[in-house]
Amino acid sequence: MHVRVISNVAEASSVNFVHRTAVVIDVLRATSTIATALAMGAECVMPIETVLDAKAMRKAGDLLGGERFCRVIPGFDLGNSPEEYNRKRVEGKRILLTTTNGTRAIHKAMRADCVLAGAFVNAAACASAVVSLKRDAVLVCAGSHDEFALEDGLCAGCLLHLMQGLTERLETDDFGEAMLGLYESKRGCIPETLRQCSGGRKLIKLGYERDVAFCSAEDAFACVPRLSGDRMVADAPV
Amino acid sequence: MHVRVISNVAEASSVNFVHRTAVVIDVLRATSTIATALAMGAECVMPIETVLDAKAMRKAGDLLGGERFCRVIPGFDLGNSPEEYNRKRVEGKRILLTTTNGTRAIHKAMRADCVLAGAFVNAAACASAVVSLKRDAVLVCAGSHDEFALEDGLCAGCLLHLMQGLTERLETDDFGEAMLGLYESKRGCIPETLRQCSGGRKLIKLGYERDVAFCSAEDAFACVPRLSGDRMVADAPV
Repeated sequence: MHVRVISNVAEASSVNFVHRTAVVIDVLRATSTIATALAMGAECVMPIETVLDAKAMRKAGDLLGGERFCRVIPGFDLGNSPEEYNRKRVEGKRILLTTTNGTRAIHKAMRADCVLAGAFVNAAACASAVVSLKRDAVLVCAGSHDEFALEDGLCAGCLLHLMQGLTERLETDDFGEAMLGLYESKRGCIPETLRQCSGGRKLIKLGYERDVAFCSAEDAFACVPRLSGDRMVADAPV
Repeated sequence: MHVRVISNVAEASSVNFVHRTAVVIDVLRATSTIATALAMGAECVMPIETVLDAKAMRKAGDLLGGERFCRVIPGFDLGNSPEEYNRKRVEGKRILLTTTNGTRAIHKAMRADCVLAGAFVNAAACASAVVSLKRDAVLVCAGSHDEFALEDGLCAGCLLHLMQGLTERLETDDFGEAMLGLYESKRGCIPETLRQCSGGRKLIKLGYERDVAFCSAEDAFACVPRLSGDRMVADAPV
């Protein structure tokens, strides 16, 4: 099984995904939020590219969520903080989510046979789902503003590490090897590393320190968001 | 002092380099070879983009060196194996060098205030030279075919690690932090890592196993190649 790792969404081209499993990784915060929302019983999360589209597609009972410049969007019900997506708020709801990097990465990956959302909060379940699909895979680090983001690379390394424990022959490319090495050196200090990377520092400065801590918690959920048509739904734990 | 790390030559844009020190890193093999040639007393190494240009610029006494598809170029005096560039062969000579990735990366970096060539073989001297120049810096991992190459990222991490020991306030970007983490996890096994990365495996398959070992040897030389006009010359050890 070969696993390619793409350093940021600008590096991803849709041909990369054909006949493969894609895992979109946007630790701070889109894929952490999607995994949380589905674990808390949301019916589905629809990744939407623009604020206007999200508003136009809203039907009665839907919740609008997301961010621009890390902040809640005016007129939206929810921001991009995973803790907002608690059971009381989201159970049974359809959520239209638009974020700067994560939803764009999901749209890029749509030609894959299967698109999953990965984060630290669902790392073990996600690694297990990828291995059980028995296809080559592409891990897409969403990054930030077309650049590599440390937390996404670290999570890709974490997923590779977990997958190595689940399958004997796992091959990756040089970037994947680098992310594995990175994870090996930081695995004992994931929360500190997320606080210190540029995305984490930015969120802390804006008052979202709790989000950074929440998104650092490995395996809080066994839920693996999987794209079905135009919406992410919860895969049963594999 | 801020140090940016660029993952491969395709990601580098010339504006990145203005008012900065650039370090071009092509461990397998161009910058290892340039550092070796200058340490062995070559007068200078001119990085040339094409085979035709190299042939056209040759004057009596010059040596032509380089590779295409990792192999010696027909009609050239030298390949891209650093050990070929021994004192007997290169002392006092002007060398016209054309390689697939390394010379291209040097040309991209030319708008920097100062362009240095870095590799494991001159890591400590190179880190010291960058710090003593007291400017922000950009480390360009040359990579291979517009993709990240593990050995170059590992060397960038090594340089950052050494620079941290020489200056109190060293800041880097997320990619630099990732390469630092990578280096920290692999510093005890640089030769093995170079043998296992895709560039190393390819060279070994083609019979260049000795080159991979040679390029893994940290601090074999105190020579820092520095661009002066259109040629790389040896900086005195700082």
